[in-house]
Parts: sequence; structure tokens; C-alpha cells
Amino acid sequence: MRAVQITEFGGPEVLRVTEVPDPVPGDDELLVDVSRAGVNFADTHQTDDSYLAPAKLPLIPGGEVVGTTADGRRVAAIVGSGGYAEKAVVKKALAFDVPEGVDDVSAVALLVQGMTAWFLLKKITHLQKGETVVVHAAAGGVGSLAIQLAKAMGAGRVIATASTQQKRDLALELGADVALDPATEDLKAALIEANGGKRVDVVLEMTGGRVTNESLAALAPFGRLAFYGMASREQPEPVAMTSLMAHTSTVSGFWLAHAFGNPPLLHQAFRELADEVVAGNLKIIGGGDYALSDVRQAHEDLRGRRTAGKLVVNPGK
Amino acid sequence: MRAVQITEFGGPEVLRVTEVPDPVPGDDELLVDVSRAGVNFADTHQTDDSYLAPAKLPLIPGGEVVGTTADGRRVAAIVGSGGYAEKAVVKKALAFDVPEGVDDVSAVALLVQGMTAWFLLKKITHLQKGETVVVHAAAGGVGSLAIQLAKAMGAGRVIATASTQQKRDLALELGADVALDPATEDLKAALIEANGGKRVDVVLEMTGGRVTNESLAALAPFGRLAFYGMASREQPEPVAMTSLMAHTSTVSGFWLAHAFGNPPLLHQAFRELADEVVAGNLKIIGGGDYALSDVRQAHEDLRGRRTAGKLVVNPGK
Repeated sequence: MRAVQITEFGGPEVLRVTEVPDPVPGDDELLVDVSRAGVNFADTHQTDDSYLAPAKLPLIPGGEVVGTTADGRRVAAIVGSGGYAEKAVVKKALAFDVPEGVDDVSAVALLVQGMTAWFLLKKITHLQKGETVVVHAAAGGVGSLAIQLAKAMGAGRVIATASTQQKRDLALELGADVALDPATEDLKAALIEANGGKRVDVVLEMTGGRVTNESLAALAPFGRLAFYGMASREQPEPVAMTSLMAHTSTVSGFWLAHAFGNPPLLHQAFRELADEVVAGNLKIIGGGDYALSDVRQAHEDLRGRRTAGKLVVNPGK
Repeated sequence: MRAVQITEFGGPEVLRVTEVPDPVPGDDELLVDVSRAGVNFADTHQTDDSYLAPAKLPLIPGGEVVGTTADGRRVAAIVGSGGYAEKAVVKKALAFDVPEGVDDVSAVALLVQGMTAWFLLKKITHLQKGETVVVHAAAGGVGSLAIQLAKAMGAGRVIATASTQQKRDLALELGADVALDPATEDLKAALIEANGGKRVDVVLEMTGGRVTNESLAALAPFGRLAFYGMASREQPEPVAMTSLMAHTSTVSGFWLAHAFGNPPLLHQAFRELADEVVAGNLKIIGGGDYALSDVRQAHEDLRGRRTAGKLVVNPGK
């Protein structure tokens, strides 16, 4: 089969299409004809071996696939690697049936990004009907889904932040009630003002530094802040337990990999997300449908921060 | 009416029984013939004006009462002050009907202490069936109820900690599966060992310092630690957001006063707690039934840490 296999770590230039043997599934695995593979920022780290988990050569990058099994099941799956290929082997436990009405790009977007949004709202912050949610990096992969999912769950008000007017406009289109620039001088005051003078209930935060600090300070009693990334690479201030007590605040960290040990919960997440897509409540923004031979370009575009929405590789192109 | 009214701040010696006019309820209030008033450590702070909220003179201390209204309703209520008296005025919104089968001492124990345990397990840490819960200060007012409530909610394993063998025996009697000394050298390892080698899911913590630090380090992915007091007066280490993310951990602070703005939720809490008492799942340990004229002794006993269980004042004695 054709695949993008790397034999040395490096930048996008090491990504080349080659002919490799078809992978062979084990007893707890399925062989999938890949129709689309997701392209994530994590793949660029896998390619230059800078990810949290070290990579081994030779390596076919790509952690998300959607495709069809020999017996006709259409499944989306999270894989450790092997996505950028005509065929991929996926664990049965981590293969999710894709219902009619969910296209390939949407299906892969529901894997890492959709599930992250789902866990943050349902299992980490326990969003309740009527509550106000702040979604930082609102035009990003997780943020754009979190806005819509929060609304579908009955959030009272969604306050988005994003760094450009174009991204803020997208957040508003996706259902945010108001969109702010996170660089606003007094972000805490701006968040409270955007919530009609009241403190906020839930914050989804993946940027770090002062955005985290000021968001925490804007929480209402019983408020929850979930921290799931640090795009600015700036550490927020450490949090004192006594300060959390004085405000009845909750802070959570989240990394989706910790959920991989709980397949039933992942299946529930995928099913609920897919249902929202079918119901028209969750719209996935396509960010580019690249041929296998154009994966290098996809990585260059991602690294250059030129993309928005979900990038996928199409091995059939 | 007879009441313990203080005209100067100070130690237990300022607590004297005097004759004062009956309090007069406003439109949103009820007049209650007090059958028992709870005595809490917070009352000693109110008496020497060292509490979080400053007190005003003259003052009738006491923040919890149970009694009967003129039209025969038996209610338990949280009050700002005024509990140590034959009659008390309570807010209608914060007066909870006490069902048959719940005695007076149990009713007052369900107010601050019971509700704290309820909020910690149900609204802060969202305990799920089968999960392991660590209850520190397990023989204390909140801890002794939290052990039983956690079991009633389906906790898989309750690990108690308490500083004396007598207190640990009490925790085991109340349903804890295992009881440890929190002064154990490697508390993190001891907690994991007490959980059969697995990290723990939920920790209720009110002591501070190394107990908090080591409990946080013992959390499983998706684990939650709730911090609701600092009896040792030692600050735990501040928590880095990136560390929470690396472990998918949650830390919460909790102060019951923040719930007073949500009477429907408080009513739900009291009703559910009272139901558990009636069902025999929640046993309140009586710690002393003092006459109004013996309130001074009650405060001395509390300050001297000579008591266990719920202390109440009986104005009829």
C-alpha cells in the first residue's frame, strides 16, 4: 500500500510517500481502508520526535483515521500512529461506528478534538444548563466544537476569546454570544462585563499565562476552570488551596490520553458527538483536504499557522 | 426569653445567660422555639471575634437551630447568629422541615456538617459509584458523615485517616474500609497501598500541609481533591496548572457559605441527608447535650479538643 513513512526525524521535508507492506491486524484489531486521516499539530511533534511520548522509526505518522473494514463497517478510530496510509490497523476497542449523516472530515474531527471538548464540558467541568462558559482559543479545533457543544448542552451564555477579528467572527457564527480579544488589558473585568456584570461559571483554557490567571479570578463561587493546553508556553501562576477555598473555585487539568483506558466512555462521547452532528447542532469547519503526496504541505501550513478548521489527508487522492 | 448574650468579645468566660426580649421575625422570617442549637468551632471564633466575618455586639452566638414554629412546623435552620436562646428568628428560605425519625441532635448535625459533606461529595467532587474516597479528619463532624454518605452513594472503598487509634476505630465503625494515621511517613504510598495498589479517585481534605500535598500526588487520572479547611494551619504547596494537566487532576476549594445563595439546593441537600438518617444509613454521633447555662463549658471542651461528635445546647435544660 501507499503510505507516508518517515525513516528519519525532522521537519516536513522528511514526509515522503512510499510503498510499504499492508499492516496485519492482531486479534483485538481491525484493518481499515482509510478514507481520511486527521492531521494534528501533535503529528508535527511526532515527525520531529518532540512529542510527550517518544516515537520510533520507521514511522507512519497520523493519529486519527476514518474508513471502512472488509465487512463494510464504517469506523473512526484513534491510533498511536499509522494514519497517513491507504490502510491502517486500529484497536477494536477504540474504533467507533460512524452513523449516516456524519461525513469523513467531521468523523475525524470528533476524535481528538471533539472528544476533548466533550470531556471538558461533560466530565471535567460538569456544565449545567444556564451557566456561562468562557471558551478561549475559540476558533481552534477544540474551541470551535466546544462553543457549539456548550450551546447544545444548554449553556446560558458563551463568551469566546480569539486573537483576530476573523477568528472572533467565526466564534460568533458558531454560536458564541460575545467574542473578546484575550489581549484586552483587564481581561478579568472584560469577562465579567461580557457576562452582564456577573462572574462566570466555567472556563475552558488552553493558552496559559495571564489568560489563565485572569480567567480564574473571574470565576463565580462554584466556578470551574479546565486547563488543557498552554499554547503561549507561559506558565500560569500556581494556585493556592486557600484561595480556591475562599472562592469555592475548582481548577482541573485535562489530557485526553488519560481517557484511553476507558473505551466505554470514549464510545459514549463519540456517539453523543455524532448525534449532535446529525442533529445539525455541531458543524465541523473543514480546513483542507490534502492528497497523500501533499502531507508535507499540510504540515507546513499547520506550522505556519495559516490554517483554520480540520485538516485531513485523503489517501485516495 | 433566656439567652446567652455576650456584650464583650473574649474567651468562654464572656458567655453568660441573661434575660433578653424575644426576637421579632420579619416578613421573610419565622420565629422558632429552639429545642437544640448546634455548637461549632466557628462559634468560638464568633465569640472572640476572630471569624472570617466580623461580629457585632451585643451578640447571641450560635449558627444552627432546630425547633418548632407557632403553627407546629418542626424546622432546622442555619442562622448567622442567635442560636443560643429559647427563641430564634430564622429565614424562611433557610428553614428545612425535619421529617419524623430524625432527632434534634441529628437535625442540627445535618446543617453545617451534613451539608458540607453532601456538597463535597455530590456537587464538588461528583463521586461516582465504585470510586475510592479518602476522608481525612474522618472522626470529625464532617468526616464522620462523609464516610457514611460516601458509602450510601456507592463508593467502592473509603479510606479514612485520623490521628488516634480511638478515632480510627470510630471511622471503621462508621463504615470506612481502612483507617490510617495521617502522620505516616510516606502518606502517598500508604494511601495507594490502602487502595490495593491503585491510585485514589476522590480526596476530602481539611487539614493542610503535607497531608494535602501527598494526597494530591496519590490521585488517579480524573481524580479530584476537595480542600475545605486547614486545621493544621499549614499551607499546602501551591499547585501548577501544568501538573494538573499532566495527571488529569482536579482540585477544588469549598466554603459552605457560598451555597447560602442557593436555597433550593440547600433544601435538596437537607432532604437527602434526612432521608439517609431515616433509612439508617447516616448515624450522628452525639458529643454532649449542654444546658444553656453550661455553654461556657461546651466552648471550653471544644477548644480543649476534648470532644467528639455533635455538641448541642438545650435551652430547655
